[in-house]
Amino acid sequence: MTTATTIGLLHPGAMGVTLGSSAINVGHTVLWASDHRSEESRTRATVAGLTDVNTLESVVKQSKVIFSICPPHAAIDIATSVAEAEFTGIYVDANAISTDTTATIKSIIEAGRSSFVDGGIIGPPAQKQDTTRLYLSGARAEEVEAMFEDAMLQGIAVSEDVGDASALKMAYAAYTKGHSALLLLSRALAKANGIEKHLLNEWALSQPHLASLCEREGRTAAKKAWRFNGEMREIAATMQATDLPGDVHQGAAKIYDRLAGFQQGSEAPSVAEILQQLVHPTDSQAT
Amino acid sequence: MTTATTIGLLHPGAMGVTLGSSAINVGHTVLWASDHRSEESRTRATVAGLTDVNTLESVVKQSKVIFSICPPHAAIDIATSVAEAEFTGIYVDANAISTDTTATIKSIIEAGRSSFVDGGIIGPPAQKQDTTRLYLSGARAEEVEAMFEDAMLQGIAVSEDVGDASALKMAYAAYTKGHSALLLLSRALAKANGIEKHLLNEWALSQPHLASLCEREGRTAAKKAWRFNGEMREIAATMQATDLPGDVHQGAAKIYDRLAGFQQGSEAPSVAEILQQLVHPTDSQAT
Repeated sequence: MTTATTIGLLHPGAMGVTLGSSAINVGHTVLWASDHRSEESRTRATVAGLTDVNTLESVVKQSKVIFSICPPHAAIDIATSVAEAEFTGIYVDANAISTDTTATIKSIIEAGRSSFVDGGIIGPPAQKQDTTRLYLSGARAEEVEAMFEDAMLQGIAVSEDVGDASALKMAYAAYTKGHSALLLLSRALAKANGIEKHLLNEWALSQPHLASLCEREGRTAAKKAWRFNGEMREIAATMQATDLPGDVHQGAAKIYDRLAGFQQGSEAPSVAEILQQLVHPTDSQAT
Repeated sequence: MTTATTIGLLHPGAMGVTLGSSAINVGHTVLWASDHRSEESRTRATVAGLTDVNTLESVVKQSKVIFSICPPHAAIDIATSVAEAEFTGIYVDANAISTDTTATIKSIIEAGRSSFVDGGIIGPPAQKQDTTRLYLSGARAEEVEAMFEDAMLQGIAVSEDVGDASALKMAYAAYTKGHSALLLLSRALAKANGIEKHLLNEWALSQPHLASLCEREGRTAAKKAWRFNGEMREIAATMQATDLPGDVHQGAAKIYDRLAGFQQGSEAPSVAEILQQLVHPTDSQAT
């Protein structure tokens, strides 16, 4: 049995709330701050049983461990706010960020009086056992792992080195999210050249899994493109930090830029709509 | 039954000879020129039953249809030589080249007195029925399709528009060969960061097909990297010609650049050797 702890969650998105409920189910208390958050976040947090303490300052004051779970572009800002509020516990950044961004956040956190643990979540929002893992690295990674003993979300401490958990997340997503981008891009090239029908005929003969994969992965990815683009740029930066080419994921980022507008609306777009937007982008984010 | 024709083949590589034997098996005569070709090419051509007429000039003089099948970087040179030798038949470029390179070759050929047909081969070297298709486009595409009636290699005329067959080949290979590059790159990122073991553990849990796919695709692609790099750049150019991002395939080209040295040797390299070469490239082609 793990010792019950008070945890702060910044901020409860689709993935974050399942970390929260995993923690609550094994006896922890999970705080969040409703200030400046959307109605959707409030509903999600209430359903998950999170305790609203209104402000980030209250979260910082009352929590022993804080988890940052947000889109990649917001990770540094959240760390800065927590450091400025003089947090003294363990700060876990569980975002899809590059090894360099991770090092920056480590500096921000350790400049204050708190400890930094690097985290990376792999898998869908944890709604049942064994689907989702929170990888952890850093001097206090094992303490955080222990907090999730018997929880739906599994904690796995991989090493004492900050950066390892982020690198693992980057390498994993480099393939999975890069793959969806590549599949859509390849089909978009056929559409742009007026030969999509012939590509689909050839796929049916020699790559019979691709049409359904394009449907399944492409539609899911398009809906999340508004945050996948940032994640692709974090991956490109991680590639470049080890002298591997960043171009593949820079290109994937541009593909997701073009699809970012599909965040709106409750339905996932059709493959035809996605290809249309790739070939004739209407969004101002298109590059 | 198709009318027997004299065909010229420039030059008989692993793919080319199977086009040659497919044609011979349905009654055509296939010529090649052994001048300046390797011992390996001679053996391949002899085994396939090709007729050696020694020089490119003889091939041009005696053939009604010439097929260019070569690595992407050699396609323009071969077309230029054939045009300079005053070829008067149908010239089929069956190479993995961009729509722009195809347009350039069309101009070179049509500046002379011969007809141009765009071709793209999809599938492995044709050693049995139904594995491999020769896509064709251009005004005389259907004449070339008819030459392969009942042949192991199937001819498919897709349109009268030069560029369509090349675009189809580019879109198809954008995924298949881009995929092998992405898979190796993602795993190389894990290796470069010292967490490959953890990536493989996570793959085993959530992407159980990837380790064997990496083994199968990665090793095959590494052996052909010396020509896949040029093909990736042709794909990038085709992307850019329709305002799609070329970065993904520029990056894939850089990956294959690093692996180009694996052309030597009869055995495919191990995944460990491939990753080592990606992370610590020793080849001078590395970028």
